[in-house]
Amino acid sequence: MAFDPTTLKYDDRGLIPCIAQDADGGDVLMMAWMNAEAVAMTLDSGRVTYWSRSRQAFWIKGETSGHVQELVDFRVDCDRDCLLVLVRQTGPACHTNRRSCFYTAVREGDEVELMKPMADK
Amino acid sequence: MAFDPTTLKYDDRGLIPCIAQDADGGDVLMMAWMNAEAVAMTLDSGRVTYWSRSRQAFWIKGETSGHVQELVDFRVDCDRDCLLVLVRQTGPACHTNRRSCFYTAVREGDEVELMKPMADK
Repeated sequence: MAFDPTTLKYDDRGLIPCIAQDADGGDVLMMAWMNAEAVAMTLDSGRVTYWSRSRQAFWIKGETSGHVQELVDFRVDCDRDCLLVLVRQTGPACHTNRRSCFYTAVREGDEVELMKPMADK
Repeated sequence: MAFDPTTLKYDDRGLIPCIAQDADGGDVLMMAWMNAEAVAMTLDSGRVTYWSRSRQAFWIKGETSGHVQELVDFRVDCDRDCLLVLVRQTGPACHTNRRSCFYTAVREGDEVELMKPMADK
């Protein structure tokens, strides 16, 4: 069946959450938002493109930082209201320069930092 | 630092998205929503507990189906507006009886079904 981005379920802002997972190691790297046009741009270009809620603009991941996400596979969930992209991530995915945004764990009631920022090249 | 569920960033419905990932195989299983009380219940009980938007009620995953999610690790992202739980999943995570909700891929413009429902016991 041909895929049509407009058949996904977007929220009242026209957005759908998208989880990015490392296609090689399997780590969950980040979650951000797409609108229908960002979905189409991602599939067309093979470069993961989100919608920035703070900037209200397309956010071609890594366009300024170089920390691009090359699309490996694009998945839709059962309810069609969440996306999963498997990516080849260059450098850190997180704006804090860490590989993943999920670097804080909660263990025995305390927050624990699991990873440090990556060294700049 | 002691973790306080009220320090997370919830949306205007009081909800935060939570990604569930298989702690063993690394597959992303599903995404659902928690409120502050569901976060506290999950950490207290070790049983992943969401907030059902359709039923407007706590949803102790697997309580009726037996397809429970045992909490292995609880993670918070950099912006404190998304959660990741690593889980030990009994049976399928998806209501369609598939292991993961992300069983549909988009490849060369077409939707492709990647996995079939699991056989009932």
